[in-house]
Amino acid sequence: MSPRASLVASPELADQGAQRIEWARANMPILRALEAEFRRDRPFEGMRAAVSIHLEAKTAYLALVLRDGGAQVAVTGSNSGSTKDDIVAALAREENVYVYAHHGASPAAMLDYRVAAIELEPQIVIDDGGDLVELLHDDYATIGRGVLGACEETTSGVLRARARAEAGELAFPVLLINDARCKYLFDNVHGTGQSVWDAVMRSTNQVIAGKVVAIAGFGWCGAGCALRAQGLGARVIVSEVDPVKAADAAMRGFDVAPLAHACERADIVLTVTGVKDTLTPEHFAGMKDGTLVANAGHFRNEVDVDALASLSSESRSFRENVTGYRLEDRWIHVLGDGNIVNIACGDGHPAEIMDTSFALQALSARHVADNAGRLDAAPIDIPKEIDERVARLKLQSMSLEIDELTAEQKDYLSSWEHE
Amino acid sequence: MSPRASLVASPELADQGAQRIEWARANMPILRALEAEFRRDRPFEGMRAAVSIHLEAKTAYLALVLRDGGAQVAVTGSNSGSTKDDIVAALAREENVYVYAHHGASPAAMLDYRVAAIELEPQIVIDDGGDLVELLHDDYATIGRGVLGACEETTSGVLRARARAEAGELAFPVLLINDARCKYLFDNVHGTGQSVWDAVMRSTNQVIAGKVVAIAGFGWCGAGCALRAQGLGARVIVSEVDPVKAADAAMRGFDVAPLAHACERADIVLTVTGVKDTLTPEHFAGMKDGTLVANAGHFRNEVDVDALASLSSESRSFRENVTGYRLEDRWIHVLGDGNIVNIACGDGHPAEIMDTSFALQALSARHVADNAGRLDAAPIDIPKEIDERVARLKLQSMSLEIDELTAEQKDYLSSWEHE
Amino acid sequence: MSPRASLVASPELADQGAQRIEWARANMPILRALEAEFRRDRPFEGMRAAVSIHLEAKTAYLALVLRDGGAQVAVTGSNSGSTKDDIVAALAREENVYVYAHHGASPAAMLDYRVAAIELEPQIVIDDGGDLVELLHDDYATIGRGVLGACEETTSGVLRARARAEAGELAFPVLLINDARCKYLFDNVHGTGQSVWDAVMRSTNQVIAGKVVAIAGFGWCGAGCALRAQGLGARVIVSEVDPVKAADAAMRGFDVAPLAHACERADIVLTVTGVKDTLTPEHFAGMKDGTLVANAGHFRNEVDVDALASLSSESRSFRENVTGYRLEDRWIHVLGDGNIVNIACGDGHPAEIMDTSFALQALSARHVADNAGRLDAAPIDIPKEIDERVARLKLQSMSLEIDELTAEQKDYLSSWEHE
Amino acid sequence: MSPRASLVASPELADQGAQRIEWARANMPILRALEAEFRRDRPFEGMRAAVSIHLEAKTAYLALVLRDGGAQVAVTGSNSGSTKDDIVAALAREENVYVYAHHGASPAAMLDYRVAAIELEPQIVIDDGGDLVELLHDDYATIGRGVLGACEETTSGVLRARARAEAGELAFPVLLINDARCKYLFDNVHGTGQSVWDAVMRSTNQVIAGKVVAIAGFGWCGAGCALRAQGLGARVIVSEVDPVKAADAAMRGFDVAPLAHACERADIVLTVTGVKDTLTPEHFAGMKDGTLVANAGHFRNEVDVDALASLSSESRSFRENVTGYRLEDRWIHVLGDGNIVNIACGDGHPAEIMDTSFALQALSARHVADNAGRLDAAPIDIPKEIDERVARLKLQSMSLEIDELTAEQKDYLSSWEHE
Repeated sequence: MSPRASLVASPELADQGAQRIEWARANMPILRALEAEFRRDRPFEGMRAAVSIHLEAKTAYLALVLRDGGAQVAVTGSNSGSTKDDIVAALAREENVYVYAHHGASPAAMLDYRVAAIELEPQIVIDDGGDLVELLHDDYATIGRGVLGACEETTSGVLRARARAEAGELAFPVLLINDARCKYLFDNVHGTGQSVWDAVMRSTNQVIAGKVVAIAGFGWCGAGCALRAQGLGARVIVSEVDPVKAADAAMRGFDVAPLAHACERADIVLTVTGVKDTLTPEHFAGMKDGTLVANAGHFRNEVDVDALASLSSESRSFRENVTGYRLEDRWIHVLGDGNIVNIACGDGHPAEIMDTSFALQALSARHVADNAGRLDAAPIDIPKEIDERVARLKLQSMSLEIDELTAEQKDYLSSWEHE
Repeated sequence: MSPRASLVASPELADQGAQRIEWARANMPILRALEAEFRRDRPFEGMRAAVSIHLEAKTAYLALVLRDGGAQVAVTGSNSGSTKDDIVAALAREENVYVYAHHGASPAAMLDYRVAAIELEPQIVIDDGGDLVELLHDDYATIGRGVLGACEETTSGVLRARARAEAGELAFPVLLINDARCKYLFDNVHGTGQSVWDAVMRSTNQVIAGKVVAIAGFGWCGAGCALRAQGLGARVIVSEVDPVKAADAAMRGFDVAPLAHACERADIVLTVTGVKDTLTPEHFAGMKDGTLVANAGHFRNEVDVDALASLSSESRSFRENVTGYRLEDRWIHVLGDGNIVNIACGDGHPAEIMDTSFALQALSARHVADNAGRLDAAPIDIPKEIDERVARLKLQSMSLEIDELTAEQKDYLSSWEHE
Repeated sequence: MSPRASLVASPELADQGAQRIEWARANMPILRALEAEFRRDRPFEGMRAAVSIHLEAKTAYLALVLRDGGAQVAVTGSNSGSTKDDIVAALAREENVYVYAHHGASPAAMLDYRVAAIELEPQIVIDDGGDLVELLHDDYATIGRGVLGACEETTSGVLRARARAEAGELAFPVLLINDARCKYLFDNVHGTGQSVWDAVMRSTNQVIAGKVVAIAGFGWCGAGCALRAQGLGARVIVSEVDPVKAADAAMRGFDVAPLAHACERADIVLTVTGVKDTLTPEHFAGMKDGTLVANAGHFRNEVDVDALASLSSESRSFRENVTGYRLEDRWIHVLGDGNIVNIACGDGHPAEIMDTSFALQALSARHVADNAGRLDAAPIDIPKEIDERVARLKLQSMSLEIDELTAEQKDYLSSWEHE
Repeated sequence: MSPRASLVASPELADQGAQRIEWARANMPILRALEAEFRRDRPFEGMRAAVSIHLEAKTAYLALVLRDGGAQVAVTGSNSGSTKDDIVAALAREENVYVYAHHGASPAAMLDYRVAAIELEPQIVIDDGGDLVELLHDDYATIGRGVLGACEETTSGVLRARARAEAGELAFPVLLINDARCKYLFDNVHGTGQSVWDAVMRSTNQVIAGKVVAIAGFGWCGAGCALRAQGLGARVIVSEVDPVKAADAAMRGFDVAPLAHACERADIVLTVTGVKDTLTPEHFAGMKDGTLVANAGHFRNEVDVDALASLSSESRSFRENVTGYRLEDRWIHVLGDGNIVNIACGDGHPAEIMDTSFALQALSARHVADNAGRLDAAPIDIPKEIDERVARLKLQSMSLEIDELTAEQKDYLSSWEHE
């Protein structure tokens, strides 16, 4: 089956899109190094890849790097709201790249786009939240049988892959990009940590200093958000269900409280749990007038915006991406309609952050290609060598150097005979 | 002379402007309290005021509060690039408010707008950088003789007023808003500190964590920028000409180096000196490929962008507000064309920050009105009572309480007989 | 064989020792809760335990809690310099406790004390750095065969146990206390992080703010030391051999450099690597006059003090625990003779920190007793239930509460069908 | 009148004292530079100076520097508890130095020692808290008439001098060392900030991370203590009577509450107010079991320890410098009996901090000598040149460099004609 033609809502934006991709490229030195390597080695020669990630400039550059490695690449967006039409237009001009997406696409259209990408019959899948992997186990399981490996970007997608594996139903290898140290130490902590506050600030023009910020969830992303909130001058209250994470937060100087209590004291409430119904009517009921609510989790379902809407006597837009809901005498302001706030109300993770994450994607895709047919149909940790290679490239891009153990020191570390 | 009619470039944006003013009002609780007070007391009944500040939503709300206190108010923008046409349109609909500004106005048009504001023959002047005060000493000195007092917002304007006073040429009282503790502790430190990084992040989509940031100037604004850069994960190098400020920066954990050396190591260079020609060809020459340059000082002349342009072999726009200049094999990226970055590339200070600064303006304007003719033609510190009143209203807006000294403790503090 | 009688160098210090143990107990609420539980349940009834940990007040209290659970307990110190004679004297008065240690004991005496503890024929071993486990595999392998399980406190001891297991030579289960989240998140990060700087400050009366601190090793302990140094106002340079840890440090705002370069810029050099010969003559050669050198690793061999001494033209004591070595025109000051600085020059980890670590020890010891003969002769991770129980007790001691997942949320997390 | 002979309680400690002074000297590079200058210039040739400051190694070195400048110097301690007998013994061996102090001296003895120092008939007085200045206005006013100038170290002493000047009763110039930027930016913020926590940690062996710390007073010292507490991982609640300081604290990310409320939530309560009766029975009543109480203010009267003692049913010593008082079922622990905690329970400010403060003292003493008879009998600000010179020497000692303004930039700053 030959690939469907690309879909381009706004072809006139192609130049602008190309400029934005160029800026992303300028800020992604690791991927630039891999681009050069892939052009030389052509590891994907004759292969097909499907990419489903928030479709903006940085993702486009990843797709181009895979293409330069020899692959035909189908690209779709993982989220209708985050798709940038200028980027789509720019990608559509590229050879061996097929793109199916437009900003604001309906759920039905989104599904159709994912199907279009799958119809390329990809051997390599780059996924975000498990959307393509889902279809490749379900209605498109036949095509799924041809998949050599998928690389999953997020905590949410990793949870889904593990659940499927535990049920004995995983049909092909899923490389857990999200669990690589070079992913969560940078993307989750610093990517989410910065971009969430970037989005809150630009959407609201509010000060963060002096505010009380409640953060539901103290995983890597939540901890990053807490760290940056503190760095911007806020007082942070962490809510958790895991006692070790809660105690960790407390020892790092954050207040800890059940979410319902935290909501009563907070000026800003942020969800980063990966769990649905984190904020429900019970929580809205206790909030102060003017409380800002935002979700930094992958799925919109962390905040029950629909329940809030139905409880409210009035709603209105106060600024772009800021919707107020009136509960009796109080206004509660929701950012980006409850969608993942750094993408819905901002530009997503910074370029240098996606540089490390996408370098893991690119090298993991190569690992799949290099080991075609030799990987288990299981959740697979990223090989340590890939993680360390990305870290070394990152350090190089920052002009930083490290030491090497001497032979004696290596022996020492692997011996139990000290002193 | 009756006031000139307002100038409105885009009347169709009035509703949007009104919505933005409403959002600012929602985030300015101190000014809301003063609005209620002024409506009751009408301290400016029959008076005229001229306001020249960055013309966006928060400034509009200040103008309306003065108007509600009984004044006729002429408003112009202090910076052509920061003027928002929707706000102008909304203000123009208001009774007893005259507005002269449009986004992107030429220097000649800007001057004409300032003149229009002056032609209202204001008794009270709200100024930013000393632009109105300048004219009122110069071509419009006759009108200047009717001024009861001006209130100056910035360090730059305060420096100019002091220089004029030292030369024996200050014609009317200038209240030094900038030197009030409730100004510089909040506006300079937290307002500039946050909004500069907000602007850098949204303009570039770059990560701050792990970057080396050089900051020229460690006054209140520079210290705020340094603090927030550190809070966002950067390493900061401070450059100074004042040895005490430099030693202070060093003891607070920042590196200190001459600016030319700092520029060689920096990923981002920020000027906050209040001094022209802070960054010159000598500094550009040492910068690394990809260095970001931004100015957070009031005047565009801190960075010699024109010299950079003339040295460069090529220049191009990479993103909105990001212009690259090519020096041999390196690109240097300038934000907002060297204009004050938090306004040129962002929304300026957060609303709650302007709330304290503008509360000082409103109460100082009232102080001028209440003491008409009784103030010296000199730079005047804001009375301690006004500073403390604003602080109390700020604490109240944050639901925070403080203690009172007992009578015994007050005696103790004013006595030298301890123990 | 009946236990050897306790050895007490200074019986007259027993009251003072008891007072210090009482103060430790007052600051160890988790262990107090377990003390009550063990008195009720008597999990170690009829058993014998050997404890080899830095012998000061907190360790003494752990020994008493085990005793109150029914065990006979032999106690020895893991480090001659850290043994407190007053604590020894106080313990010696306790029933069913045998103590063999004195401050400043020679290596030969230390070995004899360990042997004395082993001669109790312990079923349960509490070890620090693997000292008892070593002997129980070697000269006392016969007694080792009776060991139901050992609980190892440190990274160093864990490395040794793993090395032995990989060589197929581990004779009994070793529970990896060090790898429990409630250990390394608190003890390594906050325990080492605080106590190292406490020790440096009290030994030197030097300011930390404004200093350049080089930290070799960015594991949990090193990261804790870096965080606290930054919190005290220092600029930190991290040296590493692991590229991911190095990149992590850089993104958290620390400088990164090879150790030899870092030593040239540093005012204070701290080793926390777990590797011998971290600081060698090559490093000393580049240090500035007045550089402070300290080791925060378990073994003294991280800093080659003997080499420094032999290179130096003169050495003298400047303050208690501060020895200067003269290299040409420069003095290099070594703290605590290169022994682990927080113990050699301070009181070790704070009581509340050891409270979590020793609660893991106490519950792991109980786990060994409850599962006598059912555990593999392998390195064993602490069961998640124990980790979470300690965290819950920790939160309770801080009066902090957390949330619980709803049944729907648990289902959601274990399902792959989102949306 | 020839000076009284020195008083030495423990002459056998002289060598130890000399070693400690040598260590202080090694860590006071600015004073070392001035020592060389004074030896060359002999600015105090034939003069007499009296020094009353906490009598430990750093103070001793200051006295020797004055002596090397040509003065005869009488030294006494400002606080009986802080006097170190080894330092006294070492000083007593020095030519032209007379020392009157011993550790634990009674108030009557302390007074007699101050009198002995005054009997030297000093022209220059170095004072701490105004103790010598007090006597020189009172019983020894005749000698006071010969004083050319006094240099006052602390906030408390400055308040007393100002109060006396306002009453028209100041008999000689008092140079306000405390108000120099090189004093409060370093000594108050970083000296008090670090040494208070050093003292708390070494006295209690408690962890700071995760604790709630209430700080009464947010002046420079209080702000320094708050910053360091946060840097050590604590959550900080600030109590204030000044609304601007309170709002400042809130915007810097600290919680703010009335002291009585803060005491209910705190694990550690610290007073830094300069006001008597800051902590009274009302506050003790609300404290939790185990609360630590410490005073970082100059006078012991900030915490009403006597009232606490009389309310308590039992008191006992838990560790050196830790006394527990039992109120019903709770223990409240007071550090250092309510004396200034960093001195009573520690070594006072770090050497490099006192280096800047004492450099101000030495240069101000020289300023008094150089301007003998030309200074007003008033509180006098330290000349800007002295402040800047100390800062330059500080930067030099840290190997840090700064920039100079160009002639054009200086013109620009003093002109009002911008653009």
